[in-house]
Amino acid sequence: MTGRLFVVGIGPGDPELLTLKAVRVLREVPCIIVPKGREEGSSLALSIARKALSLDGKEIVEAYFPMMKTRGDADSGELDAKWDDIVHEVLTRLDTGIDAAFITIGDPAIYSTFFYLYDRLLARRPSLAIEFVPGISSVNAAAARSGLSLGLGNDRIAILPANYLENLQETLEKFDTVVLMKVNKVFDAIKDTLIRTGLAKNAVYVARAGMDDERVCKDIESVRDGDRSYFSLVIVRKR
Amino acid sequence: MTGRLFVVGIGPGDPELLTLKAVRVLREVPCIIVPKGREEGSSLALSIARKALSLDGKEIVEAYFPMMKTRGDADSGELDAKWDDIVHEVLTRLDTGIDAAFITIGDPAIYSTFFYLYDRLLARRPSLAIEFVPGISSVNAAAARSGLSLGLGNDRIAILPANYLENLQETLEKFDTVVLMKVNKVFDAIKDTLIRTGLAKNAVYVARAGMDDERVCKDIESVRDGDRSYFSLVIVRKR
Repeated sequence: MTGRLFVVGIGPGDPELLTLKAVRVLREVPCIIVPKGREEGSSLALSIARKALSLDGKEIVEAYFPMMKTRGDADSGELDAKWDDIVHEVLTRLDTGIDAAFITIGDPAIYSTFFYLYDRLLARRPSLAIEFVPGISSVNAAAARSGLSLGLGNDRIAILPANYLENLQETLEKFDTVVLMKVNKVFDAIKDTLIRTGLAKNAVYVARAGMDDERVCKDIESVRDGDRSYFSLVIVRKR
Repeated sequence: MTGRLFVVGIGPGDPELLTLKAVRVLREVPCIIVPKGREEGSSLALSIARKALSLDGKEIVEAYFPMMKTRGDADSGELDAKWDDIVHEVLTRLDTGIDAAFITIGDPAIYSTFFYLYDRLLARRPSLAIEFVPGISSVNAAAARSGLSLGLGNDRIAILPANYLENLQETLEKFDTVVLMKVNKVFDAIKDTLIRTGLAKNAVYVARAGMDDERVCKDIESVRDGDRSYFSLVIVRKR
């Protein structure tokens, strides 16, 4: 019998934002697979999980995930080899009959790189039992920390990676709420667009929502370089 | 000292999808305020919370929330009176110095009517301490149950109430993922649009995500009237 794979969202950073189900699954599985963004780095997801429960006695498989270059890249051959390594690591465990949990920060459905692995796993094992355990995404956590509704009644919500700047003004016109993810590298361009469209006062900047050093800034013009973070987003709420 | 108000998302239905924080807050507060959609009905949010922990000994305040007609309606005078009643109920408790939790299904930021109350509470008590505890929304739960990513890489995600049909085709063209909320009443029109645009095969229908009688249907053309539900959504994932 092949083991089952659980894909567990562990929320944005606050260990209290794991669900009861996430904690139960992590307690039950003997093997935890942990993505990390740099080969030499440590995993943020793992450090959050460890604050919520003890992982003593479990096998921890740290898998280097090439986060930034995922598709259509010049190095795709090298990347494919990396992904294949991870698929091999995961299947080796499941094939011994044990269950494993792949943990991911936030919610697996919201920009989690697990899905690059998913296609590859299913290609190798079409009948593999994979269960997703949803988590609190940074979007929901940032709204909570800002005291903002993302949508009410008939409101339309758009969630965009910040590099989609070309359509930003049009999207701001057509949607009641626009969430811009990972704004760090294009923050100044976003700020300029918001000022130009008169929406700067409707914007909230949230860095590291749910983490210890969270920052919520309701005056986007006052955000300084020192407040910036890879884990940052902007919520523009027109109402 | 005025008590604090916690606004607690209790997830889509599965009691294991409450967060650790939601459980702790509900355990600690002596008073729980519960919205219900019909004056004579019972609260779904309350029944979910009761499955996750005992609420014995707590005061439960059931507040009738006029869900359907919220703004710009002919009966708005009568509605305003209803909302004012709830504000009064909440403030009466907080003014005795106790903390209270307002529970809401899913995530407070995703189409929760609490925000109609929020403006009214802050109008009466501008310095009221309100803390939001994010929850798993039906959107995230439905993606998990369907094994779908809502966005990956540079993908653009739109979340729309289903009554926004006039722009649906344009939105389907411009976004990689479109989530249509509460599709029940307009299901046939949505299905027709998806068939016409060639996207029917990319659509998943999810009813009552995370509840006992959940239904996930990957062939939208096979959804029958009997499968339909108020708590239903459609995810269109173009990739």
